[in-house]
Amino acid sequence: MSSYSPSIEKLIESFEKLPSIGHKTAIRLAFHMLDMNDEEIKEFTDSIQEAKKKLKYCSTCFNISDTDPCPICSSQKRDHSTICVVEDVRDIMAMERTHEYNGVYHVLHGTISPMNGIGPEDIKIKELLNRIKENEIKEVIIATNPRVEGEATSIYIAKLLKAFNIKVTRIAHGIPVGGDLEYTDEITLMKAMEGRHEI
Amino acid sequence: MSSYSPSIEKLIESFEKLPSIGHKTAIRLAFHMLDMNDEEIKEFTDSIQEAKKKLKYCSTCFNISDTDPCPICSSQKRDHSTICVVEDVRDIMAMERTHEYNGVYHVLHGTISPMNGIGPEDIKIKELLNRIKENEIKEVIIATNPRVEGEATSIYIAKLLKAFNIKVTRIAHGIPVGGDLEYTDEITLMKAMEGRHEI
Repeated sequence: MSSYSPSIEKLIESFEKLPSIGHKTAIRLAFHMLDMNDEEIKEFTDSIQEAKKKLKYCSTCFNISDTDPCPICSSQKRDHSTICVVEDVRDIMAMERTHEYNGVYHVLHGTISPMNGIGPEDIKIKELLNRIKENEIKEVIIATNPRVEGEATSIYIAKLLKAFNIKVTRIAHGIPVGGDLEYTDEITLMKAMEGRHEI
Repeated sequence: MSSYSPSIEKLIESFEKLPSIGHKTAIRLAFHMLDMNDEEIKEFTDSIQEAKKKLKYCSTCFNISDTDPCPICSSQKRDHSTICVVEDVRDIMAMERTHEYNGVYHVLHGTISPMNGIGPEDIKIKELLNRIKENEIKEVIIATNPRVEGEATSIYIAKLLKAFNIKVTRIAHGIPVGGDLEYTDEITLMKAMEGRHEI
C-alpha cells in the first residue's frame, strides 16, 4: 500500500488493535482524528491519559474509581449489609442500570479457572472474607456469570461462607425476558424449571 | 449514573463522539484503555498526536502525506501525464486498492455545492488548472462521486478543461458487479444503458 503515509498507517493500526474495530472503521476513525482540530485532539488524548492516571481500585470493593473508597462504598444511601459479588467492574454498571439494587458490591476481578491457571488466591476472595469478618453483613448475593467458571466460583464462595451466619444467595437463571422457549438451550431451560415459583 | 467515576464518564464520552461508535462500544473501548499498560497507552496517544503533527497536504495533488510531494507525486514509476480528480483523500486509497491505476491524482477536497455555500473557488480547481498549464498532461479522469454535487463539479471542470488540448474522461456509472437489475435504481440503470458497449 504505497499510497498510505507511514503516520496514517500507524494511526490506522493503532485503532485496529482496539476491540470491535475492523479495518474500515479504523480508517474512518483515523481520518476523523485528522479532521479534528488540535484542541479536540488534546481533549481526546488527555481523557485517556487522565483516566489511566486517576483511576484506581476501591480498597473496599475493588470497583474502579477516581476516589478510594468508590462512590458506592462511600454512599450513605446504600445498604452496606448486602454485598453483591460480581466478576468484573462492568458488571457493576450493568447492575446499576437496573436501578433496583441498593446494596454494595465486591468485584472478584475474575473467576476460578484451573484450565487457565487461575486459583482462588488469584481473585479477590480473601478480601471478601475479610470484609465479611470485619463488617456486619446480612446477605451476600453471588452474581458471577452463569458459565462453568462463574458457577464453580459461586459454589466455592458459597462453601466458604457457610462458616458465617449470613444469607448467601445466587441470582436466578432462566429464560431472558422476550426470549423464546423454542430457541432456549437445555441448560437454561432446566435452570428455568428449577427456579419456577408460584404465581 | 452515580456508579460511573468522572474520569470513566469522560473517557466514554470521548469515544462516543467518534463516528460509528455507539454507547456500548464506547464503554468497551474505555475499559480496554484501562486494561492497557502505560506503554501501550503512550503508543496509542502518540500515534494520534504524531499523525496530526506530521501529516500535511501534498502541494501538488493535495493528498495527505508525511512528505511533500507525496509518495505518489514523487514516484518515478507513475504516469505523471494522467491525473485522476477525486473529491477526497480516501478516494485515492479506494482507487489504489484496485492496483489498476498508474497515473497521479488531484484531490479537490470537496465538491461545488451552492446549497452549502461551497463555490468553485472553495475547492482545489484553480490548483488543478495551474497544474495542467504547467505540466504536460494528456488525460484528466474525473472521478467525483456519482451524486448531484459530484456530477455538477464534474461538468464544471470538464467545461473549464475544454480550453486545453487534453482528453477529459469521466468514470463509468452502472450496475455494481454482483448487483441485481431488479433492485437497481432508475438513474443507475439509465446510466448503465447509456454506457453500454459492444461485446
